[in-house]
Amino acid sequence: MSTPQAGARRGPSGPIIALDAMGGDHGPQEAVRGAVRAVRDRGLRVVLVGRRTEVARLLAEEDAVGAMPVLHAEDALAMHEGALASWRRPRSSVAVACKLIRQGEASALVSAGSTGGVVATSTVRMRTQPGVLRPALAVALPTRPRPTVLLDAGANADAKPEMLVQFAHLGAAYARSAFGVENPRVGMLTIGSEPGKGNRLARKTAELLAATAAQAPTQAGRLDFRGNVEGHDLLAGEVDVVVTDGFTGNVALKTVEGAVRFTMDAVTEAMTAGTLAKAGALLQRRSLRELRNRLDSDTYGGAVLLGLNGSVVIAHGSSRAPAIERACQLAHDLTSGGIGEEVRSRVQATARSTPWRQRLGQGEEQQARP
Amino acid sequence: MSTPQAGARRGPSGPIIALDAMGGDHGPQEAVRGAVRAVRDRGLRVVLVGRRTEVARLLAEEDAVGAMPVLHAEDALAMHEGALASWRRPRSSVAVACKLIRQGEASALVSAGSTGGVVATSTVRMRTQPGVLRPALAVALPTRPRPTVLLDAGANADAKPEMLVQFAHLGAAYARSAFGVENPRVGMLTIGSEPGKGNRLARKTAELLAATAAQAPTQAGRLDFRGNVEGHDLLAGEVDVVVTDGFTGNVALKTVEGAVRFTMDAVTEAMTAGTLAKAGALLQRRSLRELRNRLDSDTYGGAVLLGLNGSVVIAHGSSRAPAIERACQLAHDLTSGGIGEEVRSRVQATARSTPWRQRLGQGEEQQARP
Repeated sequence: MSTPQAGARRGPSGPIIALDAMGGDHGPQEAVRGAVRAVRDRGLRVVLVGRRTEVARLLAEEDAVGAMPVLHAEDALAMHEGALASWRRPRSSVAVACKLIRQGEASALVSAGSTGGVVATSTVRMRTQPGVLRPALAVALPTRPRPTVLLDAGANADAKPEMLVQFAHLGAAYARSAFGVENPRVGMLTIGSEPGKGNRLARKTAELLAATAAQAPTQAGRLDFRGNVEGHDLLAGEVDVVVTDGFTGNVALKTVEGAVRFTMDAVTEAMTAGTLAKAGALLQRRSLRELRNRLDSDTYGGAVLLGLNGSVVIAHGSSRAPAIERACQLAHDLTSGGIGEEVRSRVQATARSTPWRQRLGQGEEQQARP
Repeated sequence: MSTPQAGARRGPSGPIIALDAMGGDHGPQEAVRGAVRAVRDRGLRVVLVGRRTEVARLLAEEDAVGAMPVLHAEDALAMHEGALASWRRPRSSVAVACKLIRQGEASALVSAGSTGGVVATSTVRMRTQPGVLRPALAVALPTRPRPTVLLDAGANADAKPEMLVQFAHLGAAYARSAFGVENPRVGMLTIGSEPGKGNRLARKTAELLAATAAQAPTQAGRLDFRGNVEGHDLLAGEVDVVVTDGFTGNVALKTVEGAVRFTMDAVTEAMTAGTLAKAGALLQRRSLRELRNRLDSDTYGGAVLLGLNGSVVIAHGSSRAPAIERACQLAHDLTSGGIGEEVRSRVQATARSTPWRQRLGQGEEQQARP
């Protein structure tokens, strides 16, 4: 490997991104193409991690030999592989990229590998930041005027209220680092707008979030908690962060994706059903294609695993080069935006206000026993 | 009140529907208009329940005095009223309608009142069918070629695996009674297609459902369980029933509604953004309006509360006369389709196979204790 210059991690040319060249449904070709675009068109700093000969050949095809370093990894996670199997592979491209980050030679990981595999591998190998209970998977929904961060989108199917309060802080750190939102508005996903609505987890979490908003001793630990949001508010853009457990969040995210696709398909069908309609459709082909692109789940670069010692961006398995390029940009933005510091100061600030957290947390435990 | 003929409950002219004339955002006017349409255009048998003078005046306005009986109720549930407040009102139109059903003088309740109020009132006053653990709220999603029943859509925020297994049977009974699906395919909503994916509740429920499918001693207790479905499968129409807890189901349902509306709005905006596009939009106005109607959440008549001694259809609070009319039709179809018998035989059949249910159920309890 052509080693990146020591000390260059936060240098003037920005953070170094370790890109898993082997992940994704389309194999190394799209990853390498995306990397070349990220480096050439966006001036990002990328290290490709994967089978050296294969990656070198693809770089040559792109006429980009020497454009970026290549780090050899002999193994790769399979797209169908479960979390358990994948994190046992110490020589996979994802594991090798994590090692690079642990050694301080890169700051962020980008992969289009299987979400389960990347989450498990990076959690084990990069570890959580001090004080972080669990990493959370965050996605940016295509709301206007700016995206809404939804988390946890699937890393923790069974969560506790204290984790969800931290997720709110992780999400706020994301909104601030990546989208420059100074004081992100946080809502909690539940099934009614009035306080006290929801299941046991949501009710307890709302209590804790309200307490955090009111009582946190320092500015860093404060949250602009706006209370409950419901399923139909997810795309309304009225909060910057929506917090929920990984089960509900994953169902909600996939439901959004499915419903948007369903509606677009129904629109296309309706628009080409009659002669008049068909004529109209011709006139509108371009605006509808643009809309499809805007609503495309790849637009914001992929899901982000928050709370680890380094940024992790997980692009869709179906990512082509442009999506890989955007994922690299997102990893760059998060790291340059100082998400690591932001999470650290928020977690430290809330750790100092533990008394009420422990008190309420214990109350919940007791109640949960039948 | 002009009493409906005794014994006419299942007479040749069909079941009698008690319609809450006072529920809904638009007050009695739309309810009465909907009732008149249901009786005149569809030949349904409706009893209007509400303030007699007001209802009689509205019937006169529709030139429909004597078209259907009116039962007086001096009180009404307010739309903002919580469940707790509303079920304490013994003289509300919903409570009086429930009494009519308990006395065997009507078979179904239709209301556009607040979901929480109607669920609480009817559960307390009509009670669950023997053996039913909890009633569940079911909605029909606008899938093709036929609707998909999603339940629980919000009646039980905290549920247990045994309840979800019953919900699967309630949903199957709905699909069979209302849509004539002979052997409904059932899926469980979770966050991965492989078995074992999901939170604790979903994993345990999937185990129980698989056991039900394989081991139920009689045909009535069997389920065609197709395994896990995810958020993006909700509108795919590949199963007839999707079972989940009331928290997840309510989030998913409102997410579908919000995402469909968001996409339709974005389409309309994109279609009128340029001169060419605007011209196209004119040619397509009609097909898009039809599509909006098809995707409108009112199309299938509203949510159904399953498992009580009588059918309960809860129309959207915003229902106008056509939605009330469709809700009456749905109540008629469910009752004529024999949903009561269907639920009874399914619940009895599964009650006979309790050993594995208790065994697995207890295992879950123990595991839940930390």
